Amino acid sequence: MYLGEASIEYQDGVYIQGYASIVGEKEGQGPLRSLFHDVENDPLFGGDNWEDAESRLQLRIANTTIREAGLELKDIRYVFAGDLLGQLIATSFGLKDLNIPLFGLYGACSTMGESLSLGSICVSAGHADHVLCMTSSHFASAEKSFRFPLGYGTQRKLSATWTVTGGGGVILGNSGGIARITGITTGKIVDYGCTDKENMGACMAPAAADTIAVHLSDFGRCPEDYDKIITGDLGSIGKTILLDLLDERGCRIEKQHMDCGMEIFDSEKQDTHAGASGCGCSASVLCSLILKNICSGIWKRVLFVPTGALFSPVSSNEGRSIPGIAHAVVIESLEQKG
Amino acid sequence: MYLGEASIEYQDGVYIQGYASIVGEKEGQGPLRSLFHDVENDPLFGGDNWEDAESRLQLRIANTTIREAGLELKDIRYVFAGDLLGQLIATSFGLKDLNIPLFGLYGACSTMGESLSLGSICVSAGHADHVLCMTSSHFASAEKSFRFPLGYGTQRKLSATWTVTGGGGVILGNSGGIARITGITTGKIVDYGCTDKENMGACMAPAAADTIAVHLSDFGRCPEDYDKIITGDLGSIGKTILLDLLDERGCRIEKQHMDCGMEIFDSEKQDTHAGASGCGCSASVLCSLILKNICSGIWKRVLFVPTGALFSPVSSNEGRSIPGIAHAVVIESLEQKG
Repeated sequence: MYLGEASIEYQDGVYIQGYASIVGEKEGQGPLRSLFHDVENDPLFGGDNWEDAESRLQLRIANTTIREAGLELKDIRYVFAGDLLGQLIATSFGLKDLNIPLFGLYGACSTMGESLSLGSICVSAGHADHVLCMTSSHFASAEKSFRFPLGYGTQRKLSATWTVTGGGGVILGNSGGIARITGITTGKIVDYGCTDKENMGACMAPAAADTIAVHLSDFGRCPEDYDKIITGDLGSIGKTILLDLLDERGCRIEKQHMDCGMEIFDSEKQDTHAGASGCGCSASVLCSLILKNICSGIWKRVLFVPTGALFSPVSSNEGRSIPGIAHAVVIESLEQKG
Repeated sequence: MYLGEASIEYQDGVYIQGYASIVGEKEGQGPLRSLFHDVENDPLFGGDNWEDAESRLQLRIANTTIREAGLELKDIRYVFAGDLLGQLIATSFGLKDLNIPLFGLYGACSTMGESLSLGSICVSAGHADHVLCMTSSHFASAEKSFRFPLGYGTQRKLSATWTVTGGGGVILGNSGGIARITGITTGKIVDYGCTDKENMGACMAPAAADTIAVHLSDFGRCPEDYDKIITGDLGSIGKTILLDLLDERGCRIEKQHMDCGMEIFDSEKQDTHAGASGCGCSASVLCSLILKNICSGIWKRVLFVPTGALFSPVSSNEGRSIPGIAHAVVIESLEQKG
């Protein structure tokens, strides 16, 4: 059933039947280390180059997620997946041997929100028993693609975030899961004209603010209806902007707000400046800390809002701005909020 | 309702409520010239560079399609769109001012099939009254992205196809349209190891063969159940391979088969070698020749199978193969096949 301006509420709920996260060495040394399903210390994941590394990471995430859900490859009807690289090569080369019908998605770092949204629409329509929603990022493939080759040893601005090597996968289905998706709010592109690719938090915060405000209005809810409102990878600067922008709209979410980009690393000790980013940031935090807390009933209802910065090396070199997009997903524990 | 290995059959049908195609000068000189809604002779579409040109093309397609359906911007609940460029910059910059919730898709030249598939899933679930499904490509932005700068004057192999400057949009809704989508079959990635980016027909034909064979099996149909089985942009070489591969599986579609890549140009007179390609190829042929013939009842049931070659400049330079993917959509005239 659709709701308000940009939302869908699922009457019967769509169930999360399993999830898994795999991350790299640096992420495995951070505060969430014990919550990931797997930490790989080889940055190449046994591959030949950074893109191959990320493809191998994707395949491992897919297989681990399916196993965690107690399913087999043949049980999965569709994969909804994407990544940050041009033409989604991490996904295409990573998932081709799965032999499962694929919908390739691009929402920059909001991809986990986009894949859960489209996956849940498909399940809610009764068109699949089990679908796999997943995404990844890799620090080195992203730096190579969007900024400078690592070998240059470029100095990073303090507003920069560190692209997560990692990712997560979720199996959605129409019954018997461990948590529920009860609604989604789909983001519009929001462009405040920011052009600094080393300050992506500022580029994405307006989109996150828009999606959260639209969500609360569409569902007729207030921030207090959520135990947590969790953005993807705004980092410390983006978080401040988000809270300011929502404050201007008369919406205060300080108490509920958490940002995946500020959870995965200890920024000070791990020298990650404003925090973490990448599709894999929100995906791996979702598939560790967030879903564990929801499944154990610590959090009853969470608004998960991955955020994406829509730019390419070409658009950036052409001096274009970096618009943002954010897709929100309502995730609830099976024991419903009273 | 899902069907067989990779298909969905829509019980009530999902309706096509309007469509539009816009193409460039060369396409406007081809055999379909009188069928497009608009031909733009300025290759820059009034923009500053090739990416900007394609963005402006996308925005025009969106606005024209919405108008053709007799709707206004505010009536459209979601846009399902993508393009060929890295990080979908034609789409992001083209559609940001629409202010409509966006699902960004990447399926290479199969994107029109992917957007119609996801759009129809969404409408079939009752989650939207009207959605816009669209895609584009631009000869110059694609050559710059995937091959060599135009200024090099590179000689093209005879197996090469010419990327269409153009695109198409379709409005889907849950009632009262001019044609129906009655089912979809979603493609898997198929990789026969082909590495020649100047022979994309060969790279994509195995995926088209797989999707068509799976489709016929899932629906329990034979080629004769279709007036046309229309692939996206295989060109003359890909077409031969497709027919051979299906023949090996005991499936003969010569009589029904048509390829958009062989329709939009007069290859001999227009020097386009093996034919045409690009997301905009199948999209603009769908939104001219194909939908006109369906709406007028000349064709009662068509299987539309856009085909995509999944590679990037990076994967190609790393010596990787070019896997293919193809998404099939069943489109029927309102006067059903007897």
